[in-house]
Amino acid sequence: MRAYELIKRKRDGGRLEPAEIASFIAAYTSGEVPDYQAAAMAMAIFFRGLDEAELGAWTRAMLESGDVLDLSDIPGVKVDKHSTGGVGDKISIPLVPLVVACGVKVPMMAGRGLGHTGGTIDKLESISGFRVDVGVEEFRRLVREIGVGLIGQTERLAPADRKLYALRDATATVESIPLIASSIMSKKLAEGADALVLDVKVGQGAFMKTQDQARLLAQTMVGIGKEMGRQVVARLTDMHEPLGTTVGNALEIMESIEILRGSGPKDTTALTLELGAEMLVLAGVAEDFDDARERLRAAVADGSGLAAFRRMVEAQGGDPGQIDDPTRLPRAPHVVEIPSPHAGFVSDIRAEEIGHAAVMLGAGRARKEDAIDLAVGFVLRKKMGDRVERGEAIALAHVRDPEKAKPALSRFAAAYDFAGEPPAPRPLFLERIA
Amino acid sequence: MRAYELIKRKRDGGRLEPAEIASFIAAYTSGEVPDYQAAAMAMAIFFRGLDEAELGAWTRAMLESGDVLDLSDIPGVKVDKHSTGGVGDKISIPLVPLVVACGVKVPMMAGRGLGHTGGTIDKLESISGFRVDVGVEEFRRLVREIGVGLIGQTERLAPADRKLYALRDATATVESIPLIASSIMSKKLAEGADALVLDVKVGQGAFMKTQDQARLLAQTMVGIGKEMGRQVVARLTDMHEPLGTTVGNALEIMESIEILRGSGPKDTTALTLELGAEMLVLAGVAEDFDDARERLRAAVADGSGLAAFRRMVEAQGGDPGQIDDPTRLPRAPHVVEIPSPHAGFVSDIRAEEIGHAAVMLGAGRARKEDAIDLAVGFVLRKKMGDRVERGEAIALAHVRDPEKAKPALSRFAAAYDFAGEPPAPRPLFLERIA
Repeated sequence: MRAYELIKRKRDGGRLEPAEIASFIAAYTSGEVPDYQAAAMAMAIFFRGLDEAELGAWTRAMLESGDVLDLSDIPGVKVDKHSTGGVGDKISIPLVPLVVACGVKVPMMAGRGLGHTGGTIDKLESISGFRVDVGVEEFRRLVREIGVGLIGQTERLAPADRKLYALRDATATVESIPLIASSIMSKKLAEGADALVLDVKVGQGAFMKTQDQARLLAQTMVGIGKEMGRQVVARLTDMHEPLGTTVGNALEIMESIEILRGSGPKDTTALTLELGAEMLVLAGVAEDFDDARERLRAAVADGSGLAAFRRMVEAQGGDPGQIDDPTRLPRAPHVVEIPSPHAGFVSDIRAEEIGHAAVMLGAGRARKEDAIDLAVGFVLRKKMGDRVERGEAIALAHVRDPEKAKPALSRFAAAYDFAGEPPAPRPLFLERIA
Repeated sequence: MRAYELIKRKRDGGRLEPAEIASFIAAYTSGEVPDYQAAAMAMAIFFRGLDEAELGAWTRAMLESGDVLDLSDIPGVKVDKHSTGGVGDKISIPLVPLVVACGVKVPMMAGRGLGHTGGTIDKLESISGFRVDVGVEEFRRLVREIGVGLIGQTERLAPADRKLYALRDATATVESIPLIASSIMSKKLAEGADALVLDVKVGQGAFMKTQDQARLLAQTMVGIGKEMGRQVVARLTDMHEPLGTTVGNALEIMESIEILRGSGPKDTTALTLELGAEMLVLAGVAEDFDDARERLRAAVADGSGLAAFRRMVEAQGGDPGQIDDPTRLPRAPHVVEIPSPHAGFVSDIRAEEIGHAAVMLGAGRARKEDAIDLAVGFVLRKKMGDRVERGEAIALAHVRDPEKAKPALSRFAAAYDFAGEPPAPRPLFLERIA
């Protein structure tokens, strides 16, 4: 394998053989192929793409660069869920305990936030003591005994992807559908799930700005799943305005608890139930979607979903008392109202700008090495279509320092538009690809 | 300057500002921008190109990454010549002394061979003692006193280009017209010449396979020259079969001496005179092309060109006795005939294959760190259009070990095609761009 020849062939639109891809990824993981050759290859793939066979080989090579968990000794169909990321997207947090309460087993490798989107691990770490640096054996025990294990991306699972992702992040080669798809799928396939529900976000607050791009990504990931013998279902869902009413780590845990208590916002509740239904059907614990939705609603109503969350938190070292009393979660010292500059209807909320405003407050990371402030963030009082008076609060900002927070608050306010008429309603659920 | 943003903008087809390009190149030269980001940028430029303003800024930034020689205290118009490289292209070696004999001053930074094309420095090092590792002060003295100085690419002239070229060579980003043009021009502008004649090779033995590509490269380089206030003339010339009758370092010195003696092959002699005429006119030492050709022919006839070569060799530490008696140049221990497998006319000779066969003999480098054998190579007895009998020698191979040389000889022979009719003659001179 000469890395140079493979880069050149891909650059010129040629095909790479599966064995060539396997050698390239193995040599990159071992350091034999240097970063600069992998960067050139990633940029060539950005322009030329990967066909189905190349994509399968690329994903398999990244998967096989590390350990692949075998959870087959744990009874039942293990199902995981992955979201491509959005602003206010805390769905995994209420979703997982809810499906666990219905009898699904969930092995989940979760990520941290970067850029304008948050990460599930960061959010859960708002709970004192919660940790995801569990070893593989503890992860396996958690899935078996609690029904759910959460693990951060480790050195041992898909190390090629870790290395390549960091490189892509520095070389403007993140936004490539085959590279995104193979990155997600190599991690998800490594964690030992039999089936996977993908929430592919579409819109200006998502990585995929158009439905066409999102559909292509979803089809690509579903195709990789089939090639690897796993059941994969993808839902395309709207990511235009922020999801739910909270953006910020501890604030999103509070909203998650509200969803589990049955008093959550309409959109995040609907998304939780819909993705949950997909998981129940894939796991074979529900007969059909109607049955699945019924079971999930029951798990909210009888408190078994919340109880599963409490067990999951405790099993991962977290303080379950904070679930019982969410006011004990980290709280920012100041809560500042953001007033509406106009009277009328909220006609637009640009989620990406809201995400950047949250990063400016300290809720997220501009760079990987940045520390985050778990307490800060926004609570949205008004969402698209809501009527608002001039001077009425569109949101509450939970801030560390009101003076320093001003630019973030301005950015937040500038993400809102107002009009004399309510905007056309946006459907949340766009497409289903299986 | 954030390298990431610049890579992303170029990737998406946007424009980089001159100041951004200057910062990027400076940061890459200093090591602040790592190789992997420069590799991604080079691949993005491969796909997206550079517009005229970007190209000027890119070239200027590479030029200004090191010393820029000022030869303005040396009287007269200093003219250099550059070839984009071909097989058997030894033209600089007879050309430079010939124009020096006519009164032109030539400051020349020359290169080594890589891949299927040879390098002027390697060829001249066939002469015992010849060295191009002269300092800038000695280079200046040589131009002033001898009329010509040869210098290898140093750490001090265009270091950004050295670094970037090595990276491009490892990342399949060599074949980009803006990157080729800026690389050539940054080096040529650094060496202090006022004017430049470019021999842009076209055809299967050249880097530019089509006349359209070659024209674009020529126009790009002429445009950079204008932008920088230098006179640049480009000639597009055919590089289909090898130039002249020799391929190999010492063998090409012998052919160069034949050209200076007036007994060289037709094609290399014609090319020497034509490019020489361009140089004389640019330097203002000839009134017009007819006058220039006349002066060059006179410098062959009266031996003043050969005498200038002798002086140049001596001034650079070489043994002038080898110019007087070329049989004292390095000679391979074995000379093997390569017989024609057919009777008829030579209908094709694929120069690139001949170049690779010469590399296999040891005459060139497959990798930068390879040592080369100065003595070995090929003497072509038959060129395109020549009549040949079956079993008659099409060439003589000068080899170190006849047994080990067999694969190279087979490759050489396979580069020839034969037919019952002579092929249509190919014009050597294709276009002139100024």
